[in-house]
Amino acid sequence: MAKVGVVLSGCGFLDGSEIHEATLTLYFLDKAGAEIKCMSLDTLQSDVVDHLKKESIGQERNVLAEAARIARGDIKNIDSSGLDALIFPGGFGAAKNLSNFGSQGVDCKVNPEVESLIQALYEQNKPMGFICIAPVLAAKVLGKYGPTLTVGNDTDTAGALMKMGAKHQECPVNEIVVDKDKKIVSTPAYMLGPTISKVAVGIEKLVDKVLELI
Amino acid sequence: MAKVGVVLSGCGFLDGSEIHEATLTLYFLDKAGAEIKCMSLDTLQSDVVDHLKKESIGQERNVLAEAARIARGDIKNIDSSGLDALIFPGGFGAAKNLSNFGSQGVDCKVNPEVESLIQALYEQNKPMGFICIAPVLAAKVLGKYGPTLTVGNDTDTAGALMKMGAKHQECPVNEIVVDKDKKIVSTPAYMLGPTISKVAVGIEKLVDKVLELI
Repeated sequence: MAKVGVVLSGCGFLDGSEIHEATLTLYFLDKAGAEIKCMSLDTLQSDVVDHLKKESIGQERNVLAEAARIARGDIKNIDSSGLDALIFPGGFGAAKNLSNFGSQGVDCKVNPEVESLIQALYEQNKPMGFICIAPVLAAKVLGKYGPTLTVGNDTDTAGALMKMGAKHQECPVNEIVVDKDKKIVSTPAYMLGPTISKVAVGIEKLVDKVLELI
Repeated sequence: MAKVGVVLSGCGFLDGSEIHEATLTLYFLDKAGAEIKCMSLDTLQSDVVDHLKKESIGQERNVLAEAARIARGDIKNIDSSGLDALIFPGGFGAAKNLSNFGSQGVDCKVNPEVESLIQALYEQNKPMGFICIAPVLAAKVLGKYGPTLTVGNDTDTAGALMKMGAKHQECPVNEIVVDKDKKIVSTPAYMLGPTISKVAVGIEKLVDKVLELI
C-alpha cells in the first residue's frame, strides 16, 4: 500500500487549506487504496480571515490544530520518513503559512520544514502533486531544476513561477500537467474553478497520476 | 435545476459540520447538476474544540462564519423559500449548534430557525436528507409523524431516536434508509466510518435519492 503524505496549511481557503481540494485529495487517495499521512506545521497562522466578511479578524489559530479539522484529528508534524509520495492541496495557507509567497511574491521564503520535505522527496525521486496555488512551493524550492508546472491561466502567478525558475504550461481545470522526469504533477483546481465537481476532475487525475508514478 | 439547501453547523466534526460529509454532499450535488444553497445560523458556536488535542478552548467563533469556510463564502442565513430539497450533513455541530441534543439527549431543543425550516419542508412534501448524527434533528422535529431513520448501529442514539417518536432501522455505511412516504433519507456516514471513501458511498446514494424524490 502506497504511503502518501498530504500537507495541510490550516482549514479554509482564505487563511489555510482549501477545504474542497484537501477533502477531495483524501477521498480519491482513500478510494485508490493509499495510506494517507496528513501533516502540517505546529505554528500560528499568519492571519485568521472571516470567510463570510472576507476580512482579517484579531484571533490566533494554530495551523496544525486547524488542519486537524480536515484530517479528523489524524495529523502529525511534517516528516518525510517512509513516504512514497506527497501531495499539497491549495488554499492561501500555502502562500501564507507554508510560505510567504502571498506577501513577498518571487522573493518569498518557504518554511524550512516544508522546504526540506520537498527537497527530500525530490532527491529520493518520489512523485509529488501540487494543487491550485501550491505549485509556487515547487517553483521556489525546485526552481533550480526547472520543473514544468501549471497554475491554470493566471498570467501574474505563471510569471512568478517562471521567475523562480519553473516552466509554466497552461491547463484547464479538468486536466493535469505532468513533468515525467521530475515526477511532479499539478492541476489548477480553484485557480480556475468554477465549482467543486469541476475541480474534482483534475484532482482525481492528479491523485491517480501521482500514485502511478510511485 | 433542483435547488437544494445544505444546512451547515460550523466547520469541523467536534464543534461544527463534519467537513468530509459536508464537502462530499456539495460534490455529489454539484456533480448531479443541482443548484446548492448553503445556509447556517448567525450565532456563536456552543464551544470551540481543538481538533488535535480534542479539548475545548476558550475562544468564540460564529457558526455562520465558520461554515462559510466549507461554503467558500457562499452561504446565507437559514431560509426555506424556493428550496426543492434539503440536506443536513453531520458533525457534532448538529447536536451542539443546531440543537442541544449532545447535552440534553431526548429532551433537547432544536434551534427555532432550524425547526421551522424542517417543518416547512415537510409540510411542502419536499425531500430531506440527514447524514450521520443529523437524524436526531429529524426525530425531534418530525417525531410526531413517526419517520423511519438510521444512525447506523449505535444503540444509544437509536434508542434516543425512538424515544423522540422515530423508527430506527440499522444500516451499513454504504447504504441509505429511505422513508418514501415522508421523503426522508438518512445514511450513517461517520457514525460508522471508517474512512472517507466508505462514507462517500452512502452520501452519494443519499444525494441521488433526495434528488430523485423531488
